[in-house]
Amino acid sequence: MTFAHAVTDRTRRLQTRLCVGLDPRLDAYRDAAHLRGHTLDVLEATAPYAACIKPQLAFYEALGLEGMKLLEEVCAAARTLGLPVLLDGKRGDIGSTAQAYAQGWLSGQHGGSALTVNPFLGFETLTPFVDTARANGGAVFVLVKTSNPGQADLQGSGISERVADEVRRLNAAEPQSEYPSVGAVVGATHPGDLAAFRALMPRALLLLPGLGAQGARASDLSGAFDPGGTGALASASRGVQYAQGLDVQASAAAARSFRDELNAALKQ
Amino acid sequence: MTFAHAVTDRTRRLQTRLCVGLDPRLDAYRDAAHLRGHTLDVLEATAPYAACIKPQLAFYEALGLEGMKLLEEVCAAARTLGLPVLLDGKRGDIGSTAQAYAQGWLSGQHGGSALTVNPFLGFETLTPFVDTARANGGAVFVLVKTSNPGQADLQGSGISERVADEVRRLNAAEPQSEYPSVGAVVGATHPGDLAAFRALMPRALLLLPGLGAQGARASDLSGAFDPGGTGALASASRGVQYAQGLDVQASAAAARSFRDELNAALKQ
Repeated sequence: MTFAHAVTDRTRRLQTRLCVGLDPRLDAYRDAAHLRGHTLDVLEATAPYAACIKPQLAFYEALGLEGMKLLEEVCAAARTLGLPVLLDGKRGDIGSTAQAYAQGWLSGQHGGSALTVNPFLGFETLTPFVDTARANGGAVFVLVKTSNPGQADLQGSGISERVADEVRRLNAAEPQSEYPSVGAVVGATHPGDLAAFRALMPRALLLLPGLGAQGARASDLSGAFDPGGTGALASASRGVQYAQGLDVQASAAAARSFRDELNAALKQ
Repeated sequence: MTFAHAVTDRTRRLQTRLCVGLDPRLDAYRDAAHLRGHTLDVLEATAPYAACIKPQLAFYEALGLEGMKLLEEVCAAARTLGLPVLLDGKRGDIGSTAQAYAQGWLSGQHGGSALTVNPFLGFETLTPFVDTARANGGAVFVLVKTSNPGQADLQGSGISERVADEVRRLNAAEPQSEYPSVGAVVGATHPGDLAAFRALMPRALLLLPGLGAQGARASDLSGAFDPGGTGALASASRGVQYAQGLDVQASAAAARSFRDELNAALKQ
């Protein structure tokens, strides 16, 4: 089962469109062991409400070797729980270097099966990521329009739309898949643009970051979904993991709440 | 001494403008121990001819935890040899995530003191990297025009020039430094553009990737340098580490040769 298929299957079975971000911040904890325990507890407590999880690689890298070990543990725990893993690394580089990133993050070595990628180096540089994802039943999520206000500096003037066209073009090579291997990142903070990007990339799985701490609201996101309520995942990170300090039950409640708000938005 | 100062000092003392890329490819070796030994041997053999070294993070990540351990060893060995370390990670993300990357790679934790960064998410996202580099005597190298042919997809139409303007603007905050904390990546494969980017970013240290395997020639790069022969570093990776299979003496000879060719280009 591919990443896109697994996520969509969870959406249909469990009625959830929520992607739970797991971004452990060292300054929230007494020490590395405390961070590890809490992060794994949040994963387990929020799993019933998540279509997938999204570890942000930056937070694991910031912890050095211990962080990379924890990332492997998080991926293994997610696998045990049946949760697809989307690694948020925003990698991008040329030729054989892109191939090395794809080998590292999309070959199953670290337990992840999907990766966010940055297209700034050019469309040719997406190829090794896409090929590796296809060969392993994984997925790449190409940055189309990021959730931050400053995205317009280099993504404005039609650039986001050109990237969206490339995502559609790449997915045309997989006519059999409901949702092919190439997804797209479109900030949940741009609710007015979601329907347009949905139309530009009709079969792409959309990742919508920015729910919660960044200010996006579930009720504004219905334009990103296909009629059956599939095709998009809205992600929340701090708003789940640190919903009320380090209270794990509050994390579970926040995930349940985001799930319910997304479902309610789709029923209107 | 800052990264830029250390590199420029080596350029003046040792007459070298070469950045040696250390990108170990697993398929070139019998096993991980062989890869480790050869990479550290190449570092030591080429050090006399290098202004700095540039490990490409993708190749270490592709090796998993062992790769991250090797990266720390490479950085420690470079420190012992007095070689500045520029980590080629092309990181880029928003807000507190960019801060986590900066903490991981620019705070001295992994031994590196400079990092390549991808500006696609917007100029505001450079701030955590630049602030952390300034606080630690490090440097960031912002992707302005990458070395691959497909760069024009999203870096054309004046985008590279807008990023270059931002690099100049950021460096205006450090009027005392000969070469401030914000450098720029401009492909050595675009020789006709080097003088223009040099003029757009008068005090930025330029990293020029693409010497050797990517086809750029040392003799074409003089436009990137300031009159005293400082201000730019040309980098070669495969063309040094795998100059003749795994022959370490051939790696040293290739580095010496690139150094000499760069010096000859500046004398014309």
